[in-house]
Amino acid sequence: MSERYDIAIIGSGPAGLSAALNARIRKKNFIIFGNKELTSKLAKAHEINNYLGFYKKSGKELQEEFNKHLEEMDINITEERINNVYAMGDYFALMVNEKMYEATSVILATGVEYGKLFDGEERLLGKGVGYCATCDAPLYRGKVVTIVSYNKHEEEEANFIASIASKVNYIPMYKEKVEVDPSIEIINDTPVGIIGEDKVSKLKLKNSEIETDGIFILRDSISPGQLVPGLKIVDNHIEVDRLMRTSIKGCFAAGDIVGKPYQYIKSAGEGNIAALSAVSYVDSVSKK
Amino acid sequence: MSERYDIAIIGSGPAGLSAALNARIRKKNFIIFGNKELTSKLAKAHEINNYLGFYKKSGKELQEEFNKHLEEMDINITEERINNVYAMGDYFALMVNEKMYEATSVILATGVEYGKLFDGEERLLGKGVGYCATCDAPLYRGKVVTIVSYNKHEEEEANFIASIASKVNYIPMYKEKVEVDPSIEIINDTPVGIIGEDKVSKLKLKNSEIETDGIFILRDSISPGQLVPGLKIVDNHIEVDRLMRTSIKGCFAAGDIVGKPYQYIKSAGEGNIAALSAVSYVDSVSKK
Repeated sequence: MSERYDIAIIGSGPAGLSAALNARIRKKNFIIFGNKELTSKLAKAHEINNYLGFYKKSGKELQEEFNKHLEEMDINITEERINNVYAMGDYFALMVNEKMYEATSVILATGVEYGKLFDGEERLLGKGVGYCATCDAPLYRGKVVTIVSYNKHEEEEANFIASIASKVNYIPMYKEKVEVDPSIEIINDTPVGIIGEDKVSKLKLKNSEIETDGIFILRDSISPGQLVPGLKIVDNHIEVDRLMRTSIKGCFAAGDIVGKPYQYIKSAGEGNIAALSAVSYVDSVSKK
Repeated sequence: MSERYDIAIIGSGPAGLSAALNARIRKKNFIIFGNKELTSKLAKAHEINNYLGFYKKSGKELQEEFNKHLEEMDINITEERINNVYAMGDYFALMVNEKMYEATSVILATGVEYGKLFDGEERLLGKGVGYCATCDAPLYRGKVVTIVSYNKHEEEEANFIASIASKVNYIPMYKEKVEVDPSIEIINDTPVGIIGEDKVSKLKLKNSEIETDGIFILRDSISPGQLVPGLKIVDNHIEVDRLMRTSIKGCFAAGDIVGKPYQYIKSAGEGNIAALSAVSYVDSVSKK
């Protein structure tokens, strides 16, 4: 059986980091998933003046301060992308392709940069459209799969699918050089919509159309409703109360993902609340 | 007519300061009331580890960082104590004894250290018990007034009352040397309760009892319901929604005063939200 964490934090922006500090201080067994660069949004920020205590810091400088803080408290970020979180009753199962993590409580802090959906994406979700190539690969044995990829990391995923599918089309949405298996066709064009009645038949691009059985859209973040099935979403954000509790017991959320304003200190404040709520939840469950 | 501010912020803890930064960045005409020492609670904090970006800082050190930030943004704290805030429809009147400030919106961030009420205090409020000696002084012409004072600043208040009342008893609840008008009787004892049927008749102390017509309790902060009449209070905290709106239009609140957890970064995050909500409110009102 895999180790069961008290708290799993998904996301390494200010909300996730702030949650991690408090999980550490409260001596909980926790794991935080994200990127060692913390958040691309922060790194790109030009100048931040409204994070109380720091004046005229660039996003990079603030990032360094946050990283120092994490190091001092011996907090390590696990660089894995959670594809799905399932509420199993007394614990949560966090899926990373073939791997699974378990945690008594979950804090969702993945931000809002999951991009706009393509035309037809939502309607055809589960009908040929998917977000986890590895998970659904067996469905596409001997079939044509198209991958829309927002991150170079996903090339590995594409190579894996290529070993199962009859053909893989790969559409890179990033700037780095593409290095995939030679059997994969690289298409440099921009997707605009997904076509199909009851199931996917084609991907429409700006300058072409591809016939395909399946389409995987591999974005950096997944929309919250997609990440945690059953979660109550309002206006594209996770609904929370003032203690950062979501509609699922033991599942908390903080930061941009729960709504505007999209501000670092607001996210950090909410991460603090979410962590303390998760700590109370874990304590109340363990007493039973 | 006095100047009308866009936003009046009451309180100089992390919530109030964070609100002020955002009011400044959004170019609003604002005023922040509080103490130049920011907050006594912060100054006394031994070590703070969960304010993201600062590790192992003492409260004093964090206070210095906050002060630097304020200076850099040219934010000055107005050292006055607001006794009452009245919602006047399209603006708020903020009372400081005989002075009045006006603001289109208000952010309440006064914290929770308003202490426990004395026995009988709530029941006899307005029936001889008051919080603003100067405001109610005319009621006590030629009568006996007792002042329970938590701050040396209040000595001035006591001297003023002494010029109107027939007798003033002064009970200092602070450690500094008491320097009041010689006509004032200084009583070194601890109040325990207020006695009276329909109106105050006596103050009960640990070792004595005083006959008195009125009792003024001059604490460092006033309870929120007392500060802003008509505000919806739940469990001794101001009720707010996720945008930090209170039950009164144009009135926002942030920090400990709106509820637990009592944490610096949580307060700073809420101050940010409250300020941005106040900015929207001010903009929407000015468009009309």
